[in-house]
Amino acid sequence: MTLPPTARLTPFVSADRDRIVATLHAWLRIPSISADPDHAHDVRDSAAFCANLLSDAGLEHVAILETVGAPAVYGDWLHAGPDRPTVVVYGHHDVQPVDPVELWHSAPFEPEERDGECFARGAIDDKGQVLYEVEAVRGLLRLDAGLPVNLKFLVEGEEEVGSPHFETLLQTERERLRCDLIVVSDTGMLAPDLPSTCVAMRGLVAVDVTVRTARGDLHSGLFGGAVPNAARVVAELAAGLHDDEGRVTLPGFYDAVRPLSAAEQASLASIPFDEEAWMAQAGVFGLQGEAGRTTLERVGARPTAEVVGITGGYGGAGIKTIVPATASVKVALRLVPDQDPDAVAKAFEDWVRDRLPAGVTAEISGEGAVAPAVTPVDHPAVGALCRVLERVWGRPPLFTREGGSGPEEALGRVLDAPVLFLGVGLPDDRIHAPNERMVMDQFWRGLVAAGELWPELAALGIPAR
Amino acid sequence: MTLPPTARLTPFVSADRDRIVATLHAWLRIPSISADPDHAHDVRDSAAFCANLLSDAGLEHVAILETVGAPAVYGDWLHAGPDRPTVVVYGHHDVQPVDPVELWHSAPFEPEERDGECFARGAIDDKGQVLYEVEAVRGLLRLDAGLPVNLKFLVEGEEEVGSPHFETLLQTERERLRCDLIVVSDTGMLAPDLPSTCVAMRGLVAVDVTVRTARGDLHSGLFGGAVPNAARVVAELAAGLHDDEGRVTLPGFYDAVRPLSAAEQASLASIPFDEEAWMAQAGVFGLQGEAGRTTLERVGARPTAEVVGITGGYGGAGIKTIVPATASVKVALRLVPDQDPDAVAKAFEDWVRDRLPAGVTAEISGEGAVAPAVTPVDHPAVGALCRVLERVWGRPPLFTREGGSGPEEALGRVLDAPVLFLGVGLPDDRIHAPNERMVMDQFWRGLVAAGELWPELAALGIPAR
Repeated sequence: MTLPPTARLTPFVSADRDRIVATLHAWLRIPSISADPDHAHDVRDSAAFCANLLSDAGLEHVAILETVGAPAVYGDWLHAGPDRPTVVVYGHHDVQPVDPVELWHSAPFEPEERDGECFARGAIDDKGQVLYEVEAVRGLLRLDAGLPVNLKFLVEGEEEVGSPHFETLLQTERERLRCDLIVVSDTGMLAPDLPSTCVAMRGLVAVDVTVRTARGDLHSGLFGGAVPNAARVVAELAAGLHDDEGRVTLPGFYDAVRPLSAAEQASLASIPFDEEAWMAQAGVFGLQGEAGRTTLERVGARPTAEVVGITGGYGGAGIKTIVPATASVKVALRLVPDQDPDAVAKAFEDWVRDRLPAGVTAEISGEGAVAPAVTPVDHPAVGALCRVLERVWGRPPLFTREGGSGPEEALGRVLDAPVLFLGVGLPDDRIHAPNERMVMDQFWRGLVAAGELWPELAALGIPAR
Repeated sequence: MTLPPTARLTPFVSADRDRIVATLHAWLRIPSISADPDHAHDVRDSAAFCANLLSDAGLEHVAILETVGAPAVYGDWLHAGPDRPTVVVYGHHDVQPVDPVELWHSAPFEPEERDGECFARGAIDDKGQVLYEVEAVRGLLRLDAGLPVNLKFLVEGEEEVGSPHFETLLQTERERLRCDLIVVSDTGMLAPDLPSTCVAMRGLVAVDVTVRTARGDLHSGLFGGAVPNAARVVAELAAGLHDDEGRVTLPGFYDAVRPLSAAEQASLASIPFDEEAWMAQAGVFGLQGEAGRTTLERVGARPTAEVVGITGGYGGAGIKTIVPATASVKVALRLVPDQDPDAVAKAFEDWVRDRLPAGVTAEISGEGAVAPAVTPVDHPAVGALCRVLERVWGRPPLFTREGGSGPEEALGRVLDAPVLFLGVGLPDDRIHAPNERMVMDQFWRGLVAAGELWPELAALGIPAR
């Protein structure tokens, strides 16, 4: 491990390593899958664990913030004084589902460290990234009996299902969450030797379309060829989402897309990108996407549509000679500034209804919507973050756009504060997939970086200038 | 019930009704699902049940015929003498899967009689239709201590998975199964007041295509838009199977299709067809299919391609923001004379491979192939069958083509004998679907008709002239 010897928390990491790892593993053992109602009690257990963690680290006013869905967790330390900035640290304690579970090399909720990497669902997304922020607070409080900024932790419980109740929570708790800056601890960087910080995240519109073509499944020999087939209807929808140029076919989809600024264009172009290595990392043998765009543009700067699931008819062993009566397709649309989630959701629904064959019905249900988010690269707080990243990772960070989507747009908008992204994830961490991992060296660097960031931000004055 | 009072087995039905119904229900309680390896022992139990049934009814040389897969059952009665025809009666004792099981109004393997209909998986397809043949033998043996023809029962155990080992079995057992005629008891008629007999059955090529686009599922935000998506690949295959005219797009698919004969064309045109009623029966609100063809042509006389299942990515509640790495599509192609299953399977595989995006691999596995079958309508045995159907159902039967596919082609070809179809199924019996039923009145008529058929065939001499 290569922590900067002069960093304030390097000795704390050496002293507390085993305890912190044990805490990480204990949290990762809670299967807090927010997408699955059967795991609702685990999400609550995870919230309780997080609340205890915050209290134990020295945070105050710790509270479980209830929502209509899964609870968030709050805790603060507000003794830095009125001349110091107040920062909200955001993360989430819920995790993605684990299927196909048979592809995991170790059980997803039995964390295992192998070769300096911690394998478990939620390791990097996002329990690990919340934990280093909390432990940095504990370390600074132990050293100084205080923090240079006022901190407020907000750890959500529904991020992995599209944060359906998050904006309402922010509105309700706006006073408690009043701040000058927001630090999101849920993203990544290009590589350990290529630190980067995110300055934009894509939005998300997630939709489930379930079609019905008949009262029940029909015999494919007796009825096939003359009746509509639900599996074929959803296949046609899924296949029709893109044209031959790889462009999304929803009418007006690209109309509101804002072109990249010159600074971002320059940063994007300067990212050394090894396509072969990226493909190996992704585990793919071919690339495809919007014509005329580079891979980095496709995954970060351009809006996309992906079929995240398709199901209809018989999926078991062998064959069942039926015409399926129902089928569904789930689609995740990633949005960039200035696309509007509501407008895109509406365009999608209209597009589906226009394409349904006669006599076929569809239920279209939104499964979450998040607007795209941007942070101005010339903001002084971004400069402070860049100095910290350079100090801990050894070179100045590049600016990236994160392909993922989070509730950051609502955070920035409702709390009216700039959003910084301190994230230590790596492209090969397999978030949302089997064998999610966190590289432990990145975790420790994240902890040290969090300890460096607060003094840098404190020095900016209020509001962060 | 309206059994002809002069039919030889009408009194037998009155006397033995309760015992026969109890036997039917006992057999239907065995979940002999051949598609599901977990039910392999049930298929064996069903074979044992069938063997006991044949012995008990008076058949001899009863044997379980092993295959590489599920066993068939054999039994014969060969004392009619060398101047009488020998007939193979074919049926099957395996059944289709039952999902979606929640749509059944009563448990699929707890047979229930409601309003003169027996509800259970396998009621009409095909245990009921085997049972009336066996009980007709029992009835005639009780009346006459003998049968007018030599009979051989062959009850298969893998019909619902495309009879993968049936032709091998026929080849191996060719001597034991030597015969002058084959009677298949596994089809249906247009309506109780519109008796019909099948003179052609479509063939079947069933294929599973499983594609892989990456080592594992990927995050749709981080990789989406730049990597191939397995769910989209199978959706494109499924959607690409038909052109805008509803024609199957496989190159050369229609080349070998033999036009209907004038007699069949006339019979098909004379079938009174109420499209509204048919749609209500099917439970659909729209029709679609090959342009320029009637519904009856589409379901019986034309080859088709149906997606019987499509599966990829996340199918649970809510959303999971992944790019699926694997997905599969199952397709059932129905063939008509003179399409060749091997040629069609090859064309399908070539078509799939041609359409795979770069870097995407596919496993294509055949899940059964059956050639289409035809019986000449002017064969004297067809005439005998028509007289029996008229006697029991009150009017001369129409000739139909069965949309389904069975192992009849191999039976006729390997045993070198004409194939007759005595079947009492009705279009609304929901075979292969939830709430499969058998109309009990049709069952009793089938029993009586089987008892009438043997004397009619005996009178034809050998070979059936």
